[in-house]
Amino acid sequence: MTVVPPPDVRPRNPNYQDRVRSSFARQGFMRLLGARISRLTPGFCELEVPYRQELSQQHGYFHGGVAATLADVAGGYAAFSLMDATSAVLTVEFKLNLIVAAEGDHLVARGTTLKSGRTLTVCRSEVVSLKEGQETLCASALGTFMALAGKADG
Amino acid sequence: MTVVPPPDVRPRNPNYQDRVRSSFARQGFMRLLGARISRLTPGFCELEVPYRQELSQQHGYFHGGVAATLADVAGGYAAFSLMDATSAVLTVEFKLNLIVAAEGDHLVARGTTLKSGRTLTVCRSEVVSLKEGQETLCASALGTFMALAGKADG
Amino acid sequence: MTVVPPPDVRPRNPNYQDRVRSSFARQGFMRLLGARISRLTPGFCELEVPYRQELSQQHGYFHGGVAATLADVAGGYAAFSLMDATSAVLTVEFKLNLIVAAEGDHLVARGTTLKSGRTLTVCRSEVVSLKEGQETLCASALGTFMALAGKADG
Amino acid sequence: MTVVPPPDVRPRNPNYQDRVRSSFARQGFMRLLGARISRLTPGFCELEVPYRQELSQQHGYFHGGVAATLADVAGGYAAFSLMDATSAVLTVEFKLNLIVAAEGDHLVARGTTLKSGRTLTVCRSEVVSLKEGQETLCASALGTFMALAGKADG
Repeated sequence: MTVVPPPDVRPRNPNYQDRVRSSFARQGFMRLLGARISRLTPGFCELEVPYRQELSQQHGYFHGGVAATLADVAGGYAAFSLMDATSAVLTVEFKLNLIVAAEGDHLVARGTTLKSGRTLTVCRSEVVSLKEGQETLCASALGTFMALAGKADG
Repeated sequence: MTVVPPPDVRPRNPNYQDRVRSSFARQGFMRLLGARISRLTPGFCELEVPYRQELSQQHGYFHGGVAATLADVAGGYAAFSLMDATSAVLTVEFKLNLIVAAEGDHLVARGTTLKSGRTLTVCRSEVVSLKEGQETLCASALGTFMALAGKADG
Repeated sequence: MTVVPPPDVRPRNPNYQDRVRSSFARQGFMRLLGARISRLTPGFCELEVPYRQELSQQHGYFHGGVAATLADVAGGYAAFSLMDATSAVLTVEFKLNLIVAAEGDHLVARGTTLKSGRTLTVCRSEVVSLKEGQETLCASALGTFMALAGKADG
Repeated sequence: MTVVPPPDVRPRNPNYQDRVRSSFARQGFMRLLGARISRLTPGFCELEVPYRQELSQQHGYFHGGVAATLADVAGGYAAFSLMDATSAVLTVEFKLNLIVAAEGDHLVARGTTLKSGRTLTVCRSEVVSLKEGQETLCASALGTFMALAGKADG
């Protein structure tokens, strides 16, 4: 089951690309992880991080915390991409299932908006590992994000 | 409401201290975060990480992914501390509520075992920020961990 | 680890008892389950339901859905007890771990507020089974609840 | 985004239909709710319940606990449909987001298997309300289920 961008979602903010990318660029932790935004459409955000030993757990695979972080951020910016120009975004909570060990050369998280409300947005994220171009679903997440009205996101 | 070490829990493995600390030491991601184990008793694990800009989200606070990672690892080692000497530990899933922005000079996660079964262990983690010695509860988590029998943890 | 009522929480609405109990009384599903409020203090709500075969899963124990429902409602009214007089309460989400089979003559859920914000409230619920007066922790939950301003709760 | 049955999943137990339906029939709580299995394929289970006032929350909509119960059971039987003939199924945990008020004449839950392992299965459930044939996504869930080897499910 593949997560696909939600069909035909209209962003409230036409400059959502700039807004998401500039917020992402201010996250010191994304730089530390070496993460980048690889796809961004209204209600959908994909992140990618290459493997290195500093991102590993005790068996050498990608750490579950890296998967959790990417799932959170992909969901958060999927939500943020649909918010209006004067709101900041906040993670309320998320839940993550680690499905198989995340072994590969890249970790990719795809966040998709299930429901974009005035205050709350619900997103699903899937995390796949890439090994020589082959995708394996390694984690699935479901989270809640909040629009903070009248607050700059930076 | 403070999470306290569960009263009078007997570890199945008398060498649990070595086992947990040596597994922790093999996690490249813990080194990248600058995390250390600050307390470890049977069924309980506390982790600590000092603030630096590389761990921040877009507003300069500790990133939610750092809180999630610490909550996961503190819960996982709380679970692992009660497992027998021949099992490895695996995070099945966890859920995290971010309660207030994690602002401070340190982030501390405390994992406590609610139930240690033969295969599955349920743990709760609380994440507090420290600012000049003052604790603020900033996240709460609930997760499930699995004992992989007959598998070295490294 | 016992959930205790949060110390010294001041309700925004002095008539919170009436408000919670009257909202509870309008829930047809609580009547169907045979549930009642057994304790209610600011930020804390305890519910109780006696066992009957209609509440069972396939092995004769209390159904996980009953535990989930009680955890949700206990958390929701713990949250609602701290909201002001003009807000309605809504469950945003919750997560529940079923820890042991819920075997007993009664099922009791205790919801406690971890953080009561203007819009969102985070609660933890514990579900215990009672068998001849003996308590066993059988489920633990963590959930998010929302105050809907300017909306009657009925 | 619609949940569809996972493509081409082979059940370990050719008699999975009988096994799931007979387990379902032993759940007293499903009878109390008036729920029935409306679709069952390997790795997929759909449940349906007609509205009545006894299933309502305080505003007259389907109670969140009913949505949670259906999401849990649909996920559990989606998982169970892929287990071998000698295992029982157990819900480990689940998380549910209530997306919009569940208003309608029927509530339908669809559980789909994301990963069926030897011990643990991860399922996603979506809950939709039906109002004069029109579907609205009202809840989304993600859960973990366990195969108990060598235990009859009844």
